[in-house]
Amino acid sequence: MESIVKYDYKPVLKDPILIEALPGIGNVGKVAGDHLAQLLKAERFAVIYSMNFPAQVIPGEDNVVKMACNELWHAKTPSGQDLVFLKGDYQGSTPEGQFILAQDMLEIMMSYGVSRIITLGGFGTGQIVKERHVYGAVSRIELKDELTDCGVTFLPGEPRAGIVGAAGLLIGLGQMNGIDSFCLMGETSGFFIDHGSAIEILKVLGKMFGIEDLDLKDLEAESQKLAELTDKAAEQMVEKTTDLGYIG
Amino acid sequence: MESIVKYDYKPVLKDPILIEALPGIGNVGKVAGDHLAQLLKAERFAVIYSMNFPAQVIPGEDNVVKMACNELWHAKTPSGQDLVFLKGDYQGSTPEGQFILAQDMLEIMMSYGVSRIITLGGFGTGQIVKERHVYGAVSRIELKDELTDCGVTFLPGEPRAGIVGAAGLLIGLGQMNGIDSFCLMGETSGFFIDHGSAIEILKVLGKMFGIEDLDLKDLEAESQKLAELTDKAAEQMVEKTTDLGYIG
Amino acid sequence: MESIVKYDYKPVLKDPILIEALPGIGNVGKVAGDHLAQLLKAERFAVIYSMNFPAQVIPGEDNVVKMACNELWHAKTPSGQDLVFLKGDYQGSTPEGQFILAQDMLEIMMSYGVSRIITLGGFGTGQIVKERHVYGAVSRIELKDELTDCGVTFLPGEPRAGIVGAAGLLIGLGQMNGIDSFCLMGETSGFFIDHGSAIEILKVLGKMFGIEDLDLKDLEAESQKLAELTDKAAEQMVEKTTDLGYIG
Amino acid sequence: MESIVKYDYKPVLKDPILIEALPGIGNVGKVAGDHLAQLLKAERFAVIYSMNFPAQVIPGEDNVVKMACNELWHAKTPSGQDLVFLKGDYQGSTPEGQFILAQDMLEIMMSYGVSRIITLGGFGTGQIVKERHVYGAVSRIELKDELTDCGVTFLPGEPRAGIVGAAGLLIGLGQMNGIDSFCLMGETSGFFIDHGSAIEILKVLGKMFGIEDLDLKDLEAESQKLAELTDKAAEQMVEKTTDLGYIG
Repeated sequence: MESIVKYDYKPVLKDPILIEALPGIGNVGKVAGDHLAQLLKAERFAVIYSMNFPAQVIPGEDNVVKMACNELWHAKTPSGQDLVFLKGDYQGSTPEGQFILAQDMLEIMMSYGVSRIITLGGFGTGQIVKERHVYGAVSRIELKDELTDCGVTFLPGEPRAGIVGAAGLLIGLGQMNGIDSFCLMGETSGFFIDHGSAIEILKVLGKMFGIEDLDLKDLEAESQKLAELTDKAAEQMVEKTTDLGYIG
Repeated sequence: MESIVKYDYKPVLKDPILIEALPGIGNVGKVAGDHLAQLLKAERFAVIYSMNFPAQVIPGEDNVVKMACNELWHAKTPSGQDLVFLKGDYQGSTPEGQFILAQDMLEIMMSYGVSRIITLGGFGTGQIVKERHVYGAVSRIELKDELTDCGVTFLPGEPRAGIVGAAGLLIGLGQMNGIDSFCLMGETSGFFIDHGSAIEILKVLGKMFGIEDLDLKDLEAESQKLAELTDKAAEQMVEKTTDLGYIG
Repeated sequence: MESIVKYDYKPVLKDPILIEALPGIGNVGKVAGDHLAQLLKAERFAVIYSMNFPAQVIPGEDNVVKMACNELWHAKTPSGQDLVFLKGDYQGSTPEGQFILAQDMLEIMMSYGVSRIITLGGFGTGQIVKERHVYGAVSRIELKDELTDCGVTFLPGEPRAGIVGAAGLLIGLGQMNGIDSFCLMGETSGFFIDHGSAIEILKVLGKMFGIEDLDLKDLEAESQKLAELTDKAAEQMVEKTTDLGYIG
Repeated sequence: MESIVKYDYKPVLKDPILIEALPGIGNVGKVAGDHLAQLLKAERFAVIYSMNFPAQVIPGEDNVVKMACNELWHAKTPSGQDLVFLKGDYQGSTPEGQFILAQDMLEIMMSYGVSRIITLGGFGTGQIVKERHVYGAVSRIELKDELTDCGVTFLPGEPRAGIVGAAGLLIGLGQMNGIDSFCLMGETSGFFIDHGSAIEILKVLGKMFGIEDLDLKDLEAESQKLAELTDKAAEQMVEKTTDLGYIG
């Protein structure tokens, strides 16, 4: 393993499910994963350092530095299913680095007998979206029924440009190793941090894991703020167009 | 070996010939190789994954993802010669990665006692071509007579810019290891996927392997479509020029 | 270790403190570290070569070439504390290279039982500064009191863009290995080699190590020169603005 | 060793001198080295392949491909001194690759007990040069007298930008390993292949190795051709300037 792994402690896990929630399109996956981890009172048990992250440390508000890293956090669902969240502020800086990191993450998780890999991401449309679907991609076709029941939509062949980075590599490497894997992609313009899209992913995960209260108030407030801003911008554009009409 | 090789099964092969058919100029090599593999009912026996491919998975029409990879497919010619096709949608992302991948492919094939390496590619002219030669480059001069008999043309020192990527490296590494190797390059503008150029390569391979019916209908139809489009574009340009003439 | 280390001699060191003084923003860290090393009559004991430095040699005034490298120099403070200066004209050329180099430096220093890591750098403001604070970032919060006593200022969460290169990585890797580490950043415009900012860092280090005479004459002269130049430039801009005023 | 070395044969060498003659500024080093190798009837004994060269093969006039590589050729001076020429059409594609290649070359040569390393290159001035000095840079100061006697000029601290690539790294790595090493740089505009500059390097090497007839006719003819071209261009510029003068 090329990465350097520092364990806070080594949890005992039964058939854990890995949930990848790293930064990406509209930060949808990160927002959703971080929220679920917090809701389930996840605890950090490992930090992964690598030459494949940017060569820097970031000072906290207390001036204590933190090296660029990814982290593994452990939580249990209400029914007792072990979850491991892959969290962080970085993905690998190069394609080769992303591959090495994904391999290392998988190796760690396979040592824990990982039973399933779920990666979270955004499905960028490049235009303001009102309704936000959660689109899916799977490691084997039999997984689709279960996901459809949880509210996931399947668009043939989408996203055409592929699923890049950790969200793609982890389900690809999972597939290679016979581990059921899928990616949940929240529909988003991709222009802003999209809390509304993260909410839709959370609803899918809530159904999947039997979590009744997702405590979405804060995310909904953030989402509302963004909606108002984009509505206002849209109105102004309409007004301007109307004004121009009068001139005509 | 840096690559990760997953075998569907391990075929028993006698002096197999490797045929490289990866994407390249005008996609000539890929179209020709994929057609021949299908014609000979080739079967996939190995998938090669690597950090040197783009860091992504591509969803199929059934939403099942496929990791960026190369594949090895096995077929027999009518006379019983074992062929192995190197197929895929990717070449290595960097020069170093391409070298490592070519070395790994060769190592696999040498373990099967590879007797010959044929790489397929396009010979880009940068202008619309009517007649499409198949140009050759060889690992040792004695191979030229046989290729000439199969319809291959030899232009001294061409292509001047070299043969890049897998098509070049595999015959170079073949040469280094004493394996007869050559590259067949179909003449092409390089502007479009050139089915017509692939047909000319297939005719050479057909002669070489004693394949009488190459089943070229579909490729010919595709080629015809492109020819009509480019002819129409050319006519319009002539008309415009003529119009301008009238003005004068 | 990927680096090539050539020892002039192997010093016997007791709980040494590493002081990193490589080139960076305003060259503040390098100027400060080189000055202190000279003041304490440091001696070079090791040279580190690496493929991660630029691929070149530099001829000296005597035409003897010097390969791109970093160096370790040993000195003692007046009270007998062993110091090791990390000096040189280069940082690694790539993020991966910087990480590998920092790891190798740390490995060398850990073999000497390094007790503390101090990295020196500039805190770039992008505008001419009159008063130059020395800002700090630490590996653990308990270190802040001592640094405050030596004149260091702490700005919450700054620098927001992180601390890049050796100055960041060495304290990050130090932190990972339980070694007390901090970075001292001299405030600077970042536009010029800033001797004045280096002086402020030296005052902090002087207090820390009980060095009474820092012999700052030369640095002060250099700093004065720069101040005069920038003052003159500022005056001319004021005059021009005034002239324009008359026109109005 | 990362490189792949294929030996034609393994020569028996006594204290051989390595002469590096790879492409560079004005191709001065390559032209000079190739000429001397031919003059002394050098024979190729090894080919070095590497992922650090461009990922391609080049077809010869006979359509036989040649993989990107470097080569080692053996010759003897009139007095029986063994020389090894490092020849080729490529340097490593990246700084890291150049370092690895130089290390591998040195490792090969050290196994032969290399006694001295001479690298040949151009000293680019960026303007048309009439008189072409040969400038030197050395691994230790004691080498300068001998080189001065052979006609080499020493400019303090030049070239300021350093000596990059194989010409620099090989003398740097030589120095690190206690091998007497120096670089001879022929003064050149750097705009064209400069045979005239190569001639000056050859005169130095001729004196050094006691070679009386350097057989410079062909190089002189090439050099003359270039001189006439640049003279004509210069005249035309003068004429134009004069014409403009009349207008005034």
